[in-house]
Amino acid sequence: MKHVLIVHAHPEPQSFTSSMRFEATREFEAAGCEVRVSDLYAKHFNPVASADDFSFRTRPDYLVYALEQRHAHEQHSLAPDIAEEVENVVWADLVVFNFPVFWFSVPAIMKGWIDRVLLSGLFYGGLRFYDRGGLVGKTAWVTLTLGGRPHMFGPHGIHGELQGMLSHLLRGTLGYVGFRVLKPFVGFHVPYISQEERRRVMQDLREAVRHVDTRDALSFPSLDHFDEKLYPLGIITDA
Amino acid sequence: MKHVLIVHAHPEPQSFTSSMRFEATREFEAAGCEVRVSDLYAKHFNPVASADDFSFRTRPDYLVYALEQRHAHEQHSLAPDIAEEVENVVWADLVVFNFPVFWFSVPAIMKGWIDRVLLSGLFYGGLRFYDRGGLVGKTAWVTLTLGGRPHMFGPHGIHGELQGMLSHLLRGTLGYVGFRVLKPFVGFHVPYISQEERRRVMQDLREAVRHVDTRDALSFPSLDHFDEKLYPLGIITDA
Repeated sequence: MKHVLIVHAHPEPQSFTSSMRFEATREFEAAGCEVRVSDLYAKHFNPVASADDFSFRTRPDYLVYALEQRHAHEQHSLAPDIAEEVENVVWADLVVFNFPVFWFSVPAIMKGWIDRVLLSGLFYGGLRFYDRGGLVGKTAWVTLTLGGRPHMFGPHGIHGELQGMLSHLLRGTLGYVGFRVLKPFVGFHVPYISQEERRRVMQDLREAVRHVDTRDALSFPSLDHFDEKLYPLGIITDA
Repeated sequence: MKHVLIVHAHPEPQSFTSSMRFEATREFEAAGCEVRVSDLYAKHFNPVASADDFSFRTRPDYLVYALEQRHAHEQHSLAPDIAEEVENVVWADLVVFNFPVFWFSVPAIMKGWIDRVLLSGLFYGGLRFYDRGGLVGKTAWVTLTLGGRPHMFGPHGIHGELQGMLSHLLRGTLGYVGFRVLKPFVGFHVPYISQEERRRVMQDLREAVRHVDTRDALSFPSLDHFDEKLYPLGIITDA
């Protein structure tokens, strides 16, 4: 049975984006998956990475957050809210990030989940990133809604490529820790469309969940093409 | 006299990045500028955009955050912590964002500043974005530190172009609301370099502050090249 973690953030529980989380959960369960949901607003998840996250510090006088993450994980002294989410990530085969785009990125509460939960040491560190990251073998999938319309994106769109705008998340975060990152599911123009159009978007989402196992993945660099100081081994050409 | 707002976020007040804020303040003041600093960690700034931000709501039953932002601004009922930051932005000629890169983006506490302070209506809305954004005439400058080294970025670098990774911030956020966005100041490899190298980075920052008026700006699309539905008016070629 496949384990699915849905990390969800929306300030309005009745929103379309919040419904997407329920619909996705139902489809995953119908396909025999076990689903856990981290609803960050419902949990009042604390997004601020700070010294308060560590009850015992290696360096009480000067905070190096990543260092204390490694230490706290090894000493089993992570803050309980972080430990719970870390356990969810370790448990999951597939992690779905479901949110409305705020400023071409995730809402701050979800950025805080990334800052606090994607632990240095366990999930990345040194030369353990991209295809050698700590989460190699797991899959991540971003399902999002936004206000813009499809023609606003792409090579001639006013905002350029949506995947370019989201590269900090898709590549720099999810790809970085080793996830296989699926092509995002995008609900365009959601605040402005009719109920009928919304039903179509939801139907598209259900279809996408049903076919998630064959969904295209994005491609990121392989550390095989770089030396141990991360200088490129010759010029890389796209295949 | 030029008004400079420094929005600063680092969980360790003794950090190099935190010192950058003091050094920049000193240089700006030496040049005759008036400087305000919003130190988000020191303020315990709340980064979570939620219904709690609005004491009187247009739609008490269903939260549309951007709608309530517009309403609260018009009714002068914005949450006091938001109102204070909005006033800072309106006051400033130059807004500096000073932070350590967390996951190729800003720390969550600064993302929350963006989510809550860059108000719909006042700062953007409808066709008021990019070169028609609400903050046209003001300048933004990102000064950041990161763990990576210069050769890890660029066309053959393992992470690609740093400005590409940061496009959600530089273009999709700061450019979007109309700021003229200066080329970022980047302190590379800061957690790993010697004190002597750190002194050089700080010296570079001071020089950059002294010459900020002639610093290169990034270029973003002009709405002049799009119709009122934001379809491109012909194919755009780079000049």
